[in-house]
Amino acid sequence: MTDLPRRVQINEEGPREGFQIEPGPIATARKIELIDALSETGVSKIQVASLVNPKKVPGWADADAVIRGFARKPGVDYHVLWLNERGLERALDYEGLEMVGSISTTCSETFMRRNTDRGFEQNLQVQRNQIATYKQHGIPVKRASVMAAFGCNYEGEIAVSKVVDACASLIDLAREEGLELEVLSLADTMGWGNPESVKRRVGAVRERWPEKRIGLHLHDTRGMGVANAYAGLQMGVDMFDSTVGGLGGCPFAAHKGAAGNVATEELVFLCEEMGIETGIDLDRLLDCAHLAEDIVGHILPSEMIRGGSLKKHRAATAH
Amino acid sequence: MTDLPRRVQINEEGPREGFQIEPGPIATARKIELIDALSETGVSKIQVASLVNPKKVPGWADADAVIRGFARKPGVDYHVLWLNERGLERALDYEGLEMVGSISTTCSETFMRRNTDRGFEQNLQVQRNQIATYKQHGIPVKRASVMAAFGCNYEGEIAVSKVVDACASLIDLAREEGLELEVLSLADTMGWGNPESVKRRVGAVRERWPEKRIGLHLHDTRGMGVANAYAGLQMGVDMFDSTVGGLGGCPFAAHKGAAGNVATEELVFLCEEMGIETGIDLDRLLDCAHLAEDIVGHILPSEMIRGGSLKKHRAATAH
Repeated sequence: MTDLPRRVQINEEGPREGFQIEPGPIATARKIELIDALSETGVSKIQVASLVNPKKVPGWADADAVIRGFARKPGVDYHVLWLNERGLERALDYEGLEMVGSISTTCSETFMRRNTDRGFEQNLQVQRNQIATYKQHGIPVKRASVMAAFGCNYEGEIAVSKVVDACASLIDLAREEGLELEVLSLADTMGWGNPESVKRRVGAVRERWPEKRIGLHLHDTRGMGVANAYAGLQMGVDMFDSTVGGLGGCPFAAHKGAAGNVATEELVFLCEEMGIETGIDLDRLLDCAHLAEDIVGHILPSEMIRGGSLKKHRAATAH
Repeated sequence: MTDLPRRVQINEEGPREGFQIEPGPIATARKIELIDALSETGVSKIQVASLVNPKKVPGWADADAVIRGFARKPGVDYHVLWLNERGLERALDYEGLEMVGSISTTCSETFMRRNTDRGFEQNLQVQRNQIATYKQHGIPVKRASVMAAFGCNYEGEIAVSKVVDACASLIDLAREEGLELEVLSLADTMGWGNPESVKRRVGAVRERWPEKRIGLHLHDTRGMGVANAYAGLQMGVDMFDSTVGGLGGCPFAAHKGAAGNVATEELVFLCEEMGIETGIDLDRLLDCAHLAEDIVGHILPSEMIRGGSLKKHRAATAH
């Protein structure tokens, strides 16, 4: 009936996504505290910071100190986000970061212009330049990200064909540069997705490129995050981005105060309860979610923070 | 691939579930205000109050004034909850209530004792007496509710066979009294469910009684509410209980502060976005969710309250 994977890869993006949207300022030491705590949960990839223009994203003015300050735990890949060559050049200065190149586009040119001041054509040139820089530095390019793949607050409905076209534009670009992408990540940047629209998009992309791994980057703006992840799992998706506590949200997505990404602990609970391995210790992760709430100083949207795991109930009732 | 229904019946339980758990007191007029607003959303069933012992549930000490005070809108069925014959006798005093009998049990005897001071055998006798009272008053008995059908904080895992046994005990009891139940409602009272466990339980009950309608009463304690509803929809479930704003939670379920029921607006969004009719105007319902937050005086767990519907974005981008 379903094609559930046996194991999923979860990319923790809480530090990067979460701290960029908070009115802050949040002390550098506290950002590092959360990253170090996440390193102890079993999560294998953490996006720790954003190397972007501090005038546009003041929450990451201290990215340098955060990146230098956290403890590298063996077995965990630490990533940073960059949006242009300048950010990439900065990233190359650090020790102990996993450098994996990715290229990106969106399904909505209007959103792209608001987010990055680029149109589609200009973006492709930027991505081409970025590939050149990756090559120059020996950085593998594996992932393509497609934002606004489910709908756009500026352009409305996004057709499935646009999602396929967006993927194709990046795959073709990479091939022109002699590269074969491995991962196609579809992002529901503005929370328009529903479980059936996840299935249609994943189905269309898989049918066209059956050899590619598909990832989902889901926001929980309208409470569909976990249901959409479940729909992805049913389609065999085994890679998800998420944020501890449900930190985050996109500062340019025109719905301030709305929920951020799907919460990592809810995704882990969903998977583990259905017998899908994540490699993550849920109770340690819940401690991180409580810590994240303490750091940002307000309630985070994850229900599991208050609901807790089932571990203590199971332990109390084991017989 | 799926067996999604074309239309679902949503039973709005926000007033009854929500006001019983709030530390309160909440003014009677405000309870009535929410019920009257819900009557204008297109929702066809509203559970407006609980006729229980006011010493145990002080939030419903004013049930009489609420039930007498709200405006009956033609086409909407208004229900009240009762747990024993005394409550039922009280309900019979009112005009304009839809009187439909239901009988109930749980899959966890420990939970039953804590919730109602009864064991399984004693409960069956209480249900039998209740059927007698229903008959005496000409009230049809259509629904059986099975609580703690997914897991129990006191007893741990609940086997699928226990769920089937619990349904069988109520169906058999009804048949002994010459009645045929129409609806079997499975409740995830303590938020142990996951989408696959929904499918297993619904599948087992449907296989045994293919002619019965199955309902789901889902709590969102661990953020699985919408995903569990989606799993139910995939199994053809077309009847759900929910609460506006995600009001509620069970005061006896040993996790104070945890999320309540799945939010009606998230369920409506889930359904309508997938082309399943609910008959409910989502934006009017969202107004009710904002009103509910104002009435209880704290943030409710529904993400849609902050995320909003897609209507204004669609209107702005229509071309």
